[in-house]
Amino acid sequence: MEQKLNVHALVWQDQKLSVLDQRKLPEIVHYQVYVTAPEVAEAIKTMQVRGAPALGIAAAYAVALSVQQHYQADNSAWRQQVATEIKLLAASRPTAVNLFWALDMMQAKLEQLNDSPVTAMIALAQEIHQQDIAANLKMGELGADILADAQGLLTHCNAGALATGGYGTALGVIRSAYQRQARRIYADETRPWLQGARLTVWELAQDNIPSTLIADSAAAMLMKSGQVDWIIVGADRIAANGDVANKIGTYSLAVLAKYHGVKLMVVAPTSTIDFARQSGDAIAIEQRAASEFLPACYAHEDSLITAWNPVFDVTPAALISVIVTERGAVFNPAEKGVGELNDE
Amino acid sequence: MEQKLNVHALVWQDQKLSVLDQRKLPEIVHYQVYVTAPEVAEAIKTMQVRGAPALGIAAAYAVALSVQQHYQADNSAWRQQVATEIKLLAASRPTAVNLFWALDMMQAKLEQLNDSPVTAMIALAQEIHQQDIAANLKMGELGADILADAQGLLTHCNAGALATGGYGTALGVIRSAYQRQARRIYADETRPWLQGARLTVWELAQDNIPSTLIADSAAAMLMKSGQVDWIIVGADRIAANGDVANKIGTYSLAVLAKYHGVKLMVVAPTSTIDFARQSGDAIAIEQRAASEFLPACYAHEDSLITAWNPVFDVTPAALISVIVTERGAVFNPAEKGVGELNDE
Repeated sequence: MEQKLNVHALVWQDQKLSVLDQRKLPEIVHYQVYVTAPEVAEAIKTMQVRGAPALGIAAAYAVALSVQQHYQADNSAWRQQVATEIKLLAASRPTAVNLFWALDMMQAKLEQLNDSPVTAMIALAQEIHQQDIAANLKMGELGADILADAQGLLTHCNAGALATGGYGTALGVIRSAYQRQARRIYADETRPWLQGARLTVWELAQDNIPSTLIADSAAAMLMKSGQVDWIIVGADRIAANGDVANKIGTYSLAVLAKYHGVKLMVVAPTSTIDFARQSGDAIAIEQRAASEFLPACYAHEDSLITAWNPVFDVTPAALISVIVTERGAVFNPAEKGVGELNDE
Repeated sequence: MEQKLNVHALVWQDQKLSVLDQRKLPEIVHYQVYVTAPEVAEAIKTMQVRGAPALGIAAAYAVALSVQQHYQADNSAWRQQVATEIKLLAASRPTAVNLFWALDMMQAKLEQLNDSPVTAMIALAQEIHQQDIAANLKMGELGADILADAQGLLTHCNAGALATGGYGTALGVIRSAYQRQARRIYADETRPWLQGARLTVWELAQDNIPSTLIADSAAAMLMKSGQVDWIIVGADRIAANGDVANKIGTYSLAVLAKYHGVKLMVVAPTSTIDFARQSGDAIAIEQRAASEFLPACYAHEDSLITAWNPVFDVTPAALISVIVTERGAVFNPAEKGVGELNDE
């Protein structure tokens, strides 16, 4: 199905990369235009762009910008400059696997090219970008097939166009499902960063999809009221047994969904699957600074008040109804894990 | 056990009522001093003081202030002025039962008094205040007995000294338990108003009790980690069958607690029990304005973005381990309800 994309985290145009500054949403829609790799590294570091797939694409374009800036036909000194900037990009964010995957791909391509590499490098970055969109569109249709006539959908955090090359993972499924027929869309505000309030409902409105924001702690009452049929989320990392690490609060929703007979769909490309990791127990959970939600006046030396701020939680496969990827859907992943999706 | 109270929402001193402005916490500790009833009505209306028991006590003192201001020995015109101000106080907040209960009590007393009613009215307001503190101290000891050596306690919203005459209901139990031995105390930040972040951890720190703030959606992961033995909350209304209406998110915690084998204690004076109400299904849930957490830029005429903002949820008795009142504790309230606590 042909899809018009209205929300773009990253736009390549006139040999420049435009990055939507997500820190300013929803109040201000502002694209910052970059022509060098160090500028893009800084944009990644400072969270102007976030979301694992989007970070990979931004890094790919940044390598293309680096080659474009430094390439010289008459000597090979430029290769060292590009290599230095790839290292800079690799140091911008530590955890998003997609970033390193994209840098590796761009570097391998560059080593094969001799004459006039600029066009080819830009083409590869664009291909990485387009393949991500294609995967999202595919998952959107697969997910919408599974949802059938479900009326109430709840999502958490932002697994949308803003976190990917376009269209989104969880929000891609919601887009495709809504296009087939209107549904009630609910979004958790998602503390402490409020990705739901700042990004998800804004992004849906750009595609003319109405949504209702709720406090994270109101999800249980909403499920009890019978207004939610499916919870649809993205993933940061999926273990071989189908356990899913995702934004803090996903595990909470999964337990509540099981209790209320609500189904849970995880939507993520196969690049998110860590086939070498047997279960979610081994996934290290990043802890962020207490200052993300602790009032500043508590931050003094002898303060009795601290905060516990894990970024992710792990949802056991047993609480997941289906995992949707671009290679197909795995129902009841607790039965056999997700190994069947491994094409290696 | 003798308790020193360090946190006071309301202080009666030198014929004046000092009200701690809770809207300014935790950054600013500021008491506003009032000498007339209309000032106190305004303080209630504008949320300088909140929490059902605290509202009742504030209203009682306000009636005493009214009599103090208007009483004249030589004619009875002052009685009309006081009656008008009682009506004004009754119109300040619609839902808190304690407010009307306190006004009725003060009015009944006033009708019995002829000569020099000022001292007697002040004495009754102080008695209402002291009885609330006594009930909280009693519940604190009863609750601490039940907790025994439990190591990890999680609370939601603020059911503390700030919401009562002093010491608190849920936080009273936590105070008493902590006094017997150190425990890990966790507080949900409690969206959208952040009573946990702004009030609860601040209040505990005033009593030298360390605490850890968490995002509401991190409670499930905390329970899974084994760090929480009991969840301890207050109540806004308890039905005869033991169903409990309390701050939004309480029901969510109750379901998560059941799943993880964590126990749930509700702490509230018997004045919170609505013996005439058979179950929690009949409790009307107040909806507040979307603007409490919806970014202002979404609030335009053709906006596709709305919010669902219920203030309370209802926790079925079956999910509650024990209800603690000043007349005793009811374990497994789902078995027989709380009718045994009715002394009428």
